[in-house]
Amino acid sequence: METLPPTLNLLFRSSLESAPSFRSPRVSLLRRFFIGCRFVASAAGGFCAGAEDSLLSFINGKMKATDVAHSIWKIVIRGGDTVVDATCGNGYDTIALLKLVADDSRRGCVHGLDIQSSALENTCYLLRESVAEKQRELVKLHLLCHSRMEDILPKDAAVRLIAFNLGYLPAGDKAIITKPHTTLFALQAASRIIASGGLISIVIYIGHPGGREELEAVLSFASSLAVEGWNCFKFETANRSTGPVLVFIIKK
Amino acid sequence: METLPPTLNLLFRSSLESAPSFRSPRVSLLRRFFIGCRFVASAAGGFCAGAEDSLLSFINGKMKATDVAHSIWKIVIRGGDTVVDATCGNGYDTIALLKLVADDSRRGCVHGLDIQSSALENTCYLLRESVAEKQRELVKLHLLCHSRMEDILPKDAAVRLIAFNLGYLPAGDKAIITKPHTTLFALQAASRIIASGGLISIVIYIGHPGGREELEAVLSFASSLAVEGWNCFKFETANRSTGPVLVFIIKK
Repeated sequence: METLPPTLNLLFRSSLESAPSFRSPRVSLLRRFFIGCRFVASAAGGFCAGAEDSLLSFINGKMKATDVAHSIWKIVIRGGDTVVDATCGNGYDTIALLKLVADDSRRGCVHGLDIQSSALENTCYLLRESVAEKQRELVKLHLLCHSRMEDILPKDAAVRLIAFNLGYLPAGDKAIITKPHTTLFALQAASRIIASGGLISIVIYIGHPGGREELEAVLSFASSLAVEGWNCFKFETANRSTGPVLVFIIKK
Repeated sequence: METLPPTLNLLFRSSLESAPSFRSPRVSLLRRFFIGCRFVASAAGGFCAGAEDSLLSFINGKMKATDVAHSIWKIVIRGGDTVVDATCGNGYDTIALLKLVADDSRRGCVHGLDIQSSALENTCYLLRESVAEKQRELVKLHLLCHSRMEDILPKDAAVRLIAFNLGYLPAGDKAIITKPHTTLFALQAASRIIASGGLISIVIYIGHPGGREELEAVLSFASSLAVEGWNCFKFETANRSTGPVLVFIIKK
């Protein structure tokens, strides 16, 4: 792991040994919970119409791709989980992840990676501005290519979610983009460390040169995963050739 | 319109003139409603985690493509709406639509089309078995190719949703399948009659011979729609080459 610039030391780093022990897949539990919530809402005189709201909002162009990804994360991640933001960018995903893993147990952990120090500085700044210090302690930032994520995770880490936001750093140097071959290495690494029931979430921007090649690399990787072990799904606009694409990969 | 076989007359047909006047797009209203429901659930001690549950269930392979489509329909359709089931099949979509348009106003209307009389007979049977007579009166079945849907709709019909389920009749003659060229005509017709804010919902099965060609026709149609007037979205599995594909087309 490369040494972080001093500004990044603003964030405390709790011991990786405090990462939570992994729990069993929770989808069926979520399902029961959802039914329970519907009942609660119904009993209180309402009907929880929200079940598909975010999906429709996305179809309707009223919700960004990253917001849809966040809304999926919400039901995959539980407080105390260990997750990875493979591409910190300006830190918005890092914060969204942090809010989901932070709970009273203080075992939650977000490993944030980026190959650009300016990205990690921006993430640091955003964390300082919008998150309490106690929560910030759960974030560990690493100036590292996402293809090397295994280098900074302990061998027994049970990683619940790994998030990729592929393209270039918004408002940064657009010549520096994630590249198909390193993204492919990163996805391979992610598939080795993601826990059973865990999610690899990928938002791919394809409007810039090289974007479509990266999408092809991601889809090639996803399509190579055996259906016995993985569920892979792709969402995309059908009448905008440069709209972002969402790919979700769940390890069974 | 072709004459219906006698069994289909089991269903009463209310006057098309009773179709509701069209209301303004309701997505923003839905959004507010959703927020309200979240508040209700929260106030009752729960948290409405359901917002993305159906989406995750689909990704996880725990929900069928048609169920995802139904879950989207739920927030697009309001009681009293006029909708079209372009491919009745065995009637499951027809019933799902009927339950959504039926309300005390009794103005709701489901126009169900199929080119196979056996499909309409199955739909009739399912309606008789599972729906009260008063509700059944809101269904009008037409032995007609979906490409001719405009023939049976009044000129001023404000159609909120048009549902397609493309492939062959389950448990029917698999040699009789929907075909790309008629599907294309049907989609063109649908795009002419769908109301602003309305949804064209398409589930495409591609595992049978001709299925992939039909998917290509649908995607070609969707991609031809101007982004200024339409939102088009595609959902598909990324590691199962024959998994069903969902396409949603919303008129702005």
